[in-house]
Amino acid sequence: MSEKKSNEIVVGRTKSVEDYVLDIISLFNQGSQEVEIKGNGFEINKVVDIYNQLVDRLKEGVKLEKVDIGSEVKDKRRVSYLLLKLRRVY
Amino acid sequence: MSEKKSNEIVVGRTKSVEDYVLDIISLFNQGSQEVEIKGNGFEINKVVDIYNQLVDRLKEGVKLEKVDIGSEVKDKRRVSYLLLKLRRVY
Repeated sequence: MSEKKSNEIVVGRTKSVEDYVLDIISLFNQGSQEVEIKGNGFEINKVVDIYNQLVDRLKEGVKLEKVDIGSEVKDKRRVSYLLLKLRRVY
Repeated sequence: MSEKKSNEIVVGRTKSVEDYVLDIISLFNQGSQEVEIKGNGFEINKVVDIYNQLVDRLKEGVKLEKVDIGSEVKDKRRVSYLLLKLRRVY
């Protein structure tokens, strides 16, 4: 893990959707009020899957506070990203 | 094309990002004020790419009005979707 803003989760290829859902729930249980999940390129749909599974589990307990869509340069290529800011409301 | 709400574009596998960008610009030029683009599963990141390319072209001329994230049942499987509502402001 590189030094990131503590509650930003960057979604990668190796971990499963389920793993990320559990990570986020753990962060909430440890007292975090907000968690950001971000994915680039092909990981974008994983971000959406994670969000949907999280809502299945926590129902009204999680609120989608902000959605950020854009692109950034990575390894000299421009890639799109999706960033969701989630807030715990339980 | 099936009968859809006139300005909803459902992103599929066959057409390129560029094609969709041109479709949306055409709709705007034909007088549409709002266009929705929607993608399921693996097409979600294509939706984001389309949005980014559109912003590159139209700059301030397009505004992201609403983002809808959820899941729906398709062919008995649950799939995630991303829906972006774009508004023309030029």
